[in-house]
Amino acid sequence: MAKRIRLERKVLSENDRIAARLAQRFAEARLLVLNLLSSPGAGKTSLLEQTARRLGGDLRLAAVEGDLATDRDARRLRAAGLPTRQINTGRGCHLSARQVREALQHFDGDGRPLDLHSLDILFIENVGNLVCPSQFHLGERRRVVVASTPEGDDKPLKYPVAFEPADCVVLNKMDLVEAAGFSAEAFRRYVRGLAPRAVLLELSCRTGEGLDAWLDWLRAEREVVRRA
Amino acid sequence: MAKRIRLERKVLSENDRIAARLAQRFAEARLLVLNLLSSPGAGKTSLLEQTARRLGGDLRLAAVEGDLATDRDARRLRAAGLPTRQINTGRGCHLSARQVREALQHFDGDGRPLDLHSLDILFIENVGNLVCPSQFHLGERRRVVVASTPEGDDKPLKYPVAFEPADCVVLNKMDLVEAAGFSAEAFRRYVRGLAPRAVLLELSCRTGEGLDAWLDWLRAEREVVRRA
Repeated sequence: MAKRIRLERKVLSENDRIAARLAQRFAEARLLVLNLLSSPGAGKTSLLEQTARRLGGDLRLAAVEGDLATDRDARRLRAAGLPTRQINTGRGCHLSARQVREALQHFDGDGRPLDLHSLDILFIENVGNLVCPSQFHLGERRRVVVASTPEGDDKPLKYPVAFEPADCVVLNKMDLVEAAGFSAEAFRRYVRGLAPRAVLLELSCRTGEGLDAWLDWLRAEREVVRRA
Repeated sequence: MAKRIRLERKVLSENDRIAARLAQRFAEARLLVLNLLSSPGAGKTSLLEQTARRLGGDLRLAAVEGDLATDRDARRLRAAGLPTRQINTGRGCHLSARQVREALQHFDGDGRPLDLHSLDILFIENVGNLVCPSQFHLGERRRVVVASTPEGDDKPLKYPVAFEPADCVVLNKMDLVEAAGFSAEAFRRYVRGLAPRAVLLELSCRTGEGLDAWLDWLRAEREVVRRA
């Protein structure tokens, strides 16, 4: 057991070292970088599609997309106008800072690096998993947890490792809130208990309801980074 | 990298060794043991609640319940008449065979072992995670993956590690199939491609639609084990 813990520490500290360097590069480029975490199918990709369609005219955006298999999500994002690099992790349950560094170094189809100074916001869409990704920093400035109403209102209590470090909690699929028997009031209370300083945004990527507040939050965070 | 792979192999082989002994004990007791995997909130606990209410009069059931935090699910299952031992994994992303062995050894409130010979079916509800639990056998005879319509029909393609080894795929929340814009036809095709021999059952724990086929499958599997 002790051996396992020591190795976990070693792997985490190697990741932290690379993540710290990434964070420094992102800060130098005055780039807002977001790490998006959620269960499978909560709507991270849908949120980025909607974001690209609504914000792509004003701000320069790019994405790194983590999945075990397929490039389906990267294709969806590119179709929405978002330059995206797909990472396939195979059996890997989270993105690592090393994988993100590699993806930025060989970003486009010709293997050229992403010019961080040419961008306003970089989205990192993590592997769909509420447990493991929360333990691996990727150099991001803000961590966004996307939850969805059909998952049930008790998910913050059951996955505190994901919700506690969240800077922003997006509750998606508000159009299904009644059909799912979801208590938004209970969910808010649980999030406030675990992450009292997190911004909580309720929206539906399907109907567009609530998306403006998300875009406003992105613009404000972007402005803070730009002026830093 | 090589070191990490070697340690992963070592951890996995220790788990496999304990899982093999569990499997032997389960076989000696002619006990059907199921390992339930899913994303957070897909409906594993709801499925077991419904199962206990409908099958608890005919068959002797028990459950081991894995969660990072809280005993909410164990309390739900006990309220449905299902004797249940809660395992809290903290930051742990999956159940291990060692944790299951320990839970069976100290099953009830007084720390007494579960009498495997007194049971027909033991359910092991894994941590909500479509990646890590798939790599850890728990001595189960059958592996059940619970998916749900709001997660999207492409989940088999994106999480092949979960679906490929499935003996049974339960597609839950069929009452939300239209609201979620879910293609049952596409989902069936993806499951057939990855796990051609898996039983695919479409149901709704909320409405009860399709539950009879699930109960029939359980009864048939139980019968096979009893006669083995």
